[in-house]
Amino acid sequence: MTVYLVGIDGGGTSCRAAVAGPDGRILARAHSGPANILSDPDTALENIADATRAAFDAAGLDPHSIASARAVLGVAGNNVGDAVHYVKNRLPFAEADIESDGLIALQGALGDSDGAVAILGTGTIYISRHRDTVTYIGGWGFTVGDFGSGARIGHALLQESLLAHDGIHAMSAVSTSVLAEFKNNPREIVEFARQAKPGAFARYAPRVFEYANQGDAVATRLLNDAAASVDEALDCLVARGTRTICLLGGLGTLYSSRIAPRHQKVMALPEGDALTGAVSLAVSRFGRLKAIV
Amino acid sequence: MTVYLVGIDGGGTSCRAAVAGPDGRILARAHSGPANILSDPDTALENIADATRAAFDAAGLDPHSIASARAVLGVAGNNVGDAVHYVKNRLPFAEADIESDGLIALQGALGDSDGAVAILGTGTIYISRHRDTVTYIGGWGFTVGDFGSGARIGHALLQESLLAHDGIHAMSAVSTSVLAEFKNNPREIVEFARQAKPGAFARYAPRVFEYANQGDAVATRLLNDAAASVDEALDCLVARGTRTICLLGGLGTLYSSRIAPRHQKVMALPEGDALTGAVSLAVSRFGRLKAIV
Repeated sequence: MTVYLVGIDGGGTSCRAAVAGPDGRILARAHSGPANILSDPDTALENIADATRAAFDAAGLDPHSIASARAVLGVAGNNVGDAVHYVKNRLPFAEADIESDGLIALQGALGDSDGAVAILGTGTIYISRHRDTVTYIGGWGFTVGDFGSGARIGHALLQESLLAHDGIHAMSAVSTSVLAEFKNNPREIVEFARQAKPGAFARYAPRVFEYANQGDAVATRLLNDAAASVDEALDCLVARGTRTICLLGGLGTLYSSRIAPRHQKVMALPEGDALTGAVSLAVSRFGRLKAIV
Repeated sequence: MTVYLVGIDGGGTSCRAAVAGPDGRILARAHSGPANILSDPDTALENIADATRAAFDAAGLDPHSIASARAVLGVAGNNVGDAVHYVKNRLPFAEADIESDGLIALQGALGDSDGAVAILGTGTIYISRHRDTVTYIGGWGFTVGDFGSGARIGHALLQESLLAHDGIHAMSAVSTSVLAEFKNNPREIVEFARQAKPGAFARYAPRVFEYANQGDAVATRLLNDAAASVDEALDCLVARGTRTICLLGGLGTLYSSRIAPRHQKVMALPEGDALTGAVSLAVSRFGRLKAIV
C-alpha cells in the first residue's frame, strides 16, 4: 500500500492541505475553514481532516489511505505545548509532526538552501536557517513587538489621525480619510482602538501603502518608519551571515520596493509557498517509510 | 450661618479636600482613599465625604456645615455623563460642580491668568485657557495617544529590551536591567505587557530618566523621542498664542530640563496645586452666595 505524504498549512482564516506521492510530487490541493489550534483546537482538527479528505478526493485517492499517511503541519501557536499535544493525538494520520507556520514558510521559500524569510503580515517575524540551525527573530506580537507589521502600520495611522485632529501634526489626505470614517470624532477612534485586535488595526495598513504610492506625506512617513524597522531586522540577519532573504506575508510584495538599497542584493523570490514547504518537510522526514498499515 | 467653600481633587489613588471660608482663605486640608468616579462611584462618594469631614474636623468646624457648603470637584473621567450625574446627585454639599482634574490643575497653576498646563504623568494632556475659552489637546489615552507619558516611556523601554534581546538594537545598561528582571525570558515580558494597564507600564518610566541621567544611550534616545513629542504639542500651544506654560504631573519636573530651548522662555512654575485650583473655582462660582440652609 502506498504511503501518501500530506502537508498542512493551518491558519486563522483557512486550512490548506496538499497530498503527495512517496516521491513528493503533489497530486492535489484543497482547503477548508480556520485551523487555529490555540484558540479552537476542535474546529482546527475538523478543518484539518476536511481539507485532507478534499485533497485526497481531488487526487482520486481512497480516503482510507489517510489513516496510513504521514503529515507535516505548520500552524500558528505551535509553541504552546498543551494545544500541540491535544491536536497531535487526534489527527487522522499514521504519524505527524506539528511545526510553526514560519518553519513551513521558510522551507517552502528556500527549499533546502540556507537563508531567511521575513514574514510581513499582521505581525512580523524573521526566521533564518544555517544548515540545521533555525533562528527566530521578532514575532513577539502586537503589544511590544511586530514592528513594521500591518497591525503596527494601521495603529500608527490611527495615532497620526488623532495628532492631526489636535493640530499637533499636519493633516493629509490619509488622516482626513480616517477621521471622516470615524465621523471626525476622536472618541470613536479611541473606542475602536481600545477594543481592536491586531487584525482590526492591520486592515488599515493597505490604505497607508495606497496613499503613500499617491505621494501622501503622512502615509510616506509612516511607511518610511515601518520600512526602517524592517531594515534593522534585515541588518541583523545579514550581520549573522544570511545571504538570501525572501519577503513573505501579505505585505511582503508591498514592502519589496521600500526595503533599503543595501538589502536589495540579498532579496530573492520564494521557490514555493508554505504548503509546498510542509509537503517538502513531510517528504524529507517520512518519504522513505514503508506503510505500516 | 457661614457658607464654606470646598475644593476636591479626586484621583485614582487618593482624594484630597480643602475647606475655605467665604473669602477663599483655605482653613484646612485632608485626604482619604481613591475617588475614581468612573470605575467605582460609590467608593469615590465615600472618600469624597471622608476627606471633606476630615478637613472640616481639622479646621475645627461643625460637620453639619458640610450640608450648606458649596464645592468644586476635579475628577478624572468627568466627561462620562452617567457617572457624573450619579455622583453629583449623591454629594453631601448644598451645591457642587464636577470638573475635570485637568481644569482644576490649570486653575491652580495659572490662577486667573491665560496660559496652559502640560500634565505629564501616566498619561499626557495639554490644557490651555484664553479668557473664558478652555481648549484640550491630547489626553486620548495609552492605546493611541498619551505620547511622552510615563506609560508610553515604560512601554518603549520594554520594546527596546526585546529589540536588544533579539540583537536588532544595541544592548545598554537599562535594557539589561529590564531583561534581568524578566529572567532574560522575552516571553515573560510579552506576557507582562499583554496584561499591563498604563500604570504598570508607567512604573518603568522613572528608571528611564534615572539611566538617562547616568548617560545610558538607550534611555537617552527614548527620552529624546518622548521629549520631542511633548515639544510638538507645546509648539501647537505656542502657535495658538499661549505665552505661559506650566509642566505638571509626576514627570513635569523631570521633563523641565529636557524640553527644547525654544520653549524654555514660556515655562513658568505653577502658582498652586490642583486642590488650590478647585477651591479657587469654588470661590469664583459660589463665594458670594448666602447660606440657604
